[in-house]
Amino acid sequence: MKGYFITLEGVEGSGKSTQVRLIKEYLESLGYKVVTTFEPGDTEVGKEIRKILLSPDNTELVSRAELLLYVAERAQHVFELLKPSLEEGKIIISDRYTDATLAYQGYARGLDQNLIEELNTIATEGLEPDLTLLLDIDPQISLRRAKQVTAENSSKGDRIEAEKISFHQRVRKGYLDLAKREERIELIDANQSIDNIFNSIKTILQKRLIKDENR
Amino acid sequence: MKGYFITLEGVEGSGKSTQVRLIKEYLESLGYKVVTTFEPGDTEVGKEIRKILLSPDNTELVSRAELLLYVAERAQHVFELLKPSLEEGKIIISDRYTDATLAYQGYARGLDQNLIEELNTIATEGLEPDLTLLLDIDPQISLRRAKQVTAENSSKGDRIEAEKISFHQRVRKGYLDLAKREERIELIDANQSIDNIFNSIKTILQKRLIKDENR
Repeated sequence: MKGYFITLEGVEGSGKSTQVRLIKEYLESLGYKVVTTFEPGDTEVGKEIRKILLSPDNTELVSRAELLLYVAERAQHVFELLKPSLEEGKIIISDRYTDATLAYQGYARGLDQNLIEELNTIATEGLEPDLTLLLDIDPQISLRRAKQVTAENSSKGDRIEAEKISFHQRVRKGYLDLAKREERIELIDANQSIDNIFNSIKTILQKRLIKDENR
Repeated sequence: MKGYFITLEGVEGSGKSTQVRLIKEYLESLGYKVVTTFEPGDTEVGKEIRKILLSPDNTELVSRAELLLYVAERAQHVFELLKPSLEEGKIIISDRYTDATLAYQGYARGLDQNLIEELNTIATEGLEPDLTLLLDIDPQISLRRAKQVTAENSSKGDRIEAEKISFHQRVRKGYLDLAKREERIELIDANQSIDNIFNSIKTILQKRLIKDENR
C-alpha cells in the first residue's frame, strides 16, 4: 500500500495552516493515518536552513543561493520524512512544497522556471503531490491577516512578509498559472469563511481521494 | 582588466591554508591586489550554512541535502565575493571550490558526477578557476596533522574529519582523477617541507600567471 501526498499552497495569510488542521481531523475521523508537515523547516536540519531563509538580517542573501537553500531543505524533507511516511502508507498533508518555489523564486523573484523545475526534480527525485489545494486570495487582504498575527505575537515579521505587495501579487499570479497547467492543482476561493473553504476542500477530497485510490 | 582566480584543493590537513598565506604574501610583494578566501563559510550567509554542514550533531543530514547546501554556499560566495573581486581586477586565492564537491560528494560520497557538475554550473554561472593547485598527500599522514590541530584547540573535530580513512582515500583518488582530466589543475607533492611546497607553487605561478595573462 502506498500513501497519498497532499500539498497546500497560497500566498502569506491565505489560511493554509488552519485548513491543514481541519483536513487532518477529517481524514483521521475516516480512519486514515495522517502526517501533517510544512516547508521550510520541519526537520532538524530544515529548521536550521529555515532560520537562514527567514532571518530579516540576511539582506545580502543572493537569489540563487536562496533558491538552492529552499531546495536543500526540500531534499532533507523528502528523504527524511516524506518518502518514509508515504512508504508506510500514510496520508501526508504538507503546507507548501515544489509549487511554492516556482511561485516565489520563479514568478516573483524572476529566476528561470526551467532551472527551478530542474532543481525541484533533483531535490525530490521526482516525488510529486497527488493533490494540491491552492487557496487563492488577493494578498492585499491576506497579508493584513498575516501581519496581524505577527503583531499579536509581537514578533518582527520575516524576510518574505517584508516584501512589497507587488511581490506577493506576482506570487499569486504564479500560482494561478500553475493551476492552469497542472491537473493535480485544485483552485479554492479563500475569500470564503473558514467553514466554507473547508467544505470546498471536503468535496474535492471525497472526489479525488476515492478516484486516485482506484487508479 | 580582469582578475585571476586561483583555487587550492587537497584532503584535510594537506597544508592548504599555510600555502594560501604564503602565496598571498608573494603575489602582494609583486604588486598584485590579492583577496584570500575559503569554502564553505566566508560570507555571513555562508557562515550559517557552514555551521549546518560541519556540526557533528547533524548526523541525519541526507547526502542530497548536503550537496545542495554546499552549492548554495558556493552561489552566495560567487555572487557576493568572487565575481565582484574579479571584476575589480584582483587575484583571488580560494581554499576549496568546485573540485572539492566533486571529490567529497562525488567520489567519496558516491553522488552522481554529472549531477554535481550541473549543480556547480548553476551555482557559479560557469565561473571556473584559472588555476588550481592540488596539494596531494596520503590522508593517513595528513589527517594525523589535522587532528593534532583540532586537539590543540581542544575542539571536537567536525563532521567531515570524523569520516573513516577510506572516505578520505576516495577523496584523494577523486582529486587525482580530476587532475588528469583538467589542464588547469597542477599537481603538487605535499609530502615535502612547507618551503619546498611553496617553491613548487612559485615555479607554477611564474609560468602560469604570465602565460595566462598573455592569453
